[in-house]
Amino acid sequence: MQDEIRIGYNELKSVFYDILCKLGFTNEKAEACATVFANNSLDGVYTHGVNRFPRFVQNVKDGVVIADNEPVKTGGTNALEQWDGQLGPGPLNAMVCTDRAIELAKQNGIACVALANTNHWMRGGAYAWQATKKGFAFICWTNTIANMPAWGAFDSRLGNNPLIMGIPYKDEAIVLDMAISQFSYGAMEKLAMKNKQLEVPGGFNESGEMTKDPQEIIKSNRSLPVGYWKGSGLSLLLDILAAVLSGGKSTSQVTEQKSESALSQVFIAIDLQSLHNFPSINLILNNIITDYHAASPDGSGNAILFPGERVVQTRKQNLVEGIPVNSKVWEQIQSL
Amino acid sequence: MQDEIRIGYNELKSVFYDILCKLGFTNEKAEACATVFANNSLDGVYTHGVNRFPRFVQNVKDGVVIADNEPVKTGGTNALEQWDGQLGPGPLNAMVCTDRAIELAKQNGIACVALANTNHWMRGGAYAWQATKKGFAFICWTNTIANMPAWGAFDSRLGNNPLIMGIPYKDEAIVLDMAISQFSYGAMEKLAMKNKQLEVPGGFNESGEMTKDPQEIIKSNRSLPVGYWKGSGLSLLLDILAAVLSGGKSTSQVTEQKSESALSQVFIAIDLQSLHNFPSINLILNNIITDYHAASPDGSGNAILFPGERVVQTRKQNLVEGIPVNSKVWEQIQSL
Repeated sequence: MQDEIRIGYNELKSVFYDILCKLGFTNEKAEACATVFANNSLDGVYTHGVNRFPRFVQNVKDGVVIADNEPVKTGGTNALEQWDGQLGPGPLNAMVCTDRAIELAKQNGIACVALANTNHWMRGGAYAWQATKKGFAFICWTNTIANMPAWGAFDSRLGNNPLIMGIPYKDEAIVLDMAISQFSYGAMEKLAMKNKQLEVPGGFNESGEMTKDPQEIIKSNRSLPVGYWKGSGLSLLLDILAAVLSGGKSTSQVTEQKSESALSQVFIAIDLQSLHNFPSINLILNNIITDYHAASPDGSGNAILFPGERVVQTRKQNLVEGIPVNSKVWEQIQSL
Repeated sequence: MQDEIRIGYNELKSVFYDILCKLGFTNEKAEACATVFANNSLDGVYTHGVNRFPRFVQNVKDGVVIADNEPVKTGGTNALEQWDGQLGPGPLNAMVCTDRAIELAKQNGIACVALANTNHWMRGGAYAWQATKKGFAFICWTNTIANMPAWGAFDSRLGNNPLIMGIPYKDEAIVLDMAISQFSYGAMEKLAMKNKQLEVPGGFNESGEMTKDPQEIIKSNRSLPVGYWKGSGLSLLLDILAAVLSGGKSTSQVTEQKSESALSQVFIAIDLQSLHNFPSINLILNNIITDYHAASPDGSGNAILFPGERVVQTRKQNLVEGIPVNSKVWEQIQSL
């Protein structure tokens, strides 16, 4: 595409870094935050990397995200801690809590840090990659502002509450990063612009019929949870556990605020080294993945990839070729 | 229906108990196991209660389930323990590991027991009800024999690996008990017998097209994961974590055995009393559920219920009216 350019990873990160420093981030925090945005882009999650950066900057300028604030511990015992993110930058809060969960898991085998009053973490998978790189299995999730109706309901009272699970595998990891909505509005907008249909129904049209037409769903604002009634229940439970464990706001309370802030998140780390079968984990993973890949394709052309497999391919390609950035987005970022 | 009779809860349990004693279960184990089967039926999960009891008895007779064997600890540290179920009765192993996770959570805030070499636990929700009754939040899952193709794959290499999450609510609980397949074969067979269609696509026909016809899916043996590629990834990660954390078999290894045995399961308990916001948990749950229920119905007629809400209604009704049992199943059980 003509309006797409390729920017090297280091250049992208350094542009982010300079802007964040100008915004009042300390060097250390600017470095950490720039890395998250650059890594998300490198891994192909542009929606929560380079494309989202201008909005993040605006959130800092508007005081929704408070650059200086850091998470503080508010409660808990041994392997379970509660933290308050004090409306600091979501990615930084999430990184701190991920590291804290890892630290506690080293002592306890498993540990959970629940975080209240944080901001959008951008891409949940980032924290699973962070934890798996250190050798830990990891589960985390966040609640969000309401953006999806429950099964049987007309109006949106559920968040798409992404759920992430990861485990180290060879030099990389197997990382599932799934929002509970079947499609993100970002993905639907992209297809709508190209006049394309979704592969499976993604929501309702304005007459209340299920549809594969992204334009109709954007109009009705009624997207589908994965598995219909099942994802509806899963989204509710993820919200409940995030709000209760952290002592923070629920999707319903976040939605009352009108802006998506003061979110609740959960970070669970598991120390694989404490397992009696630690030496054979790679063997068991290899067996599982070999069997998974050995399935015959169904003829649809959908590749049989494990979660995270495409991420690593994209990461390698983008490291060599540079990260694809829309030239208008790039102009906008450079003017920040 | 003419071929359905109602059996009182106590009678059902006592019939189960007598049969299990005859099979060589100790009085205590027969009581515990009969309670699980009776409770599952009471709660309306007949497929994994009364209807499944004859198969469970057969499994004991065949030596797949070893009545006398008990789970033993094999590894772990502090809040994370590994146990071996030694092919004992699945429901008893799961109950022991649930209680053990609760015990460890009391000391650590959160705790995880991973169980290898166990048998079918019947209904995962049972253990969330067990834990929530004691005041704990709870997450558990199991792997299963392969019964579902991955997204893009023709042959079944994934299990439907039920995932359960629960939290106490008022005098009852909110309990999500979801298999990762959109529909169970049991549910599809029931509809197929009535010549009815599924509400949403549940799998593929023999030409590889998605279909709502349960008969076609039963023929092709190709059911759909919830959320298509998303549930496909979720199922894989649940299997991986269950096998790795327990040191037990993966879906792939269970499937090699031909019979569904030596499963791997994970039980995570969270001590809500250790949270600084413990006194206000019911208030926050009330707010969430009130908001959830306040949604306008979408006109489909699907009730906006939280997970577990229908279970409590059914439980109350069945306690008063007796548990509906197919008269042929009842005859079969009485002849055991």
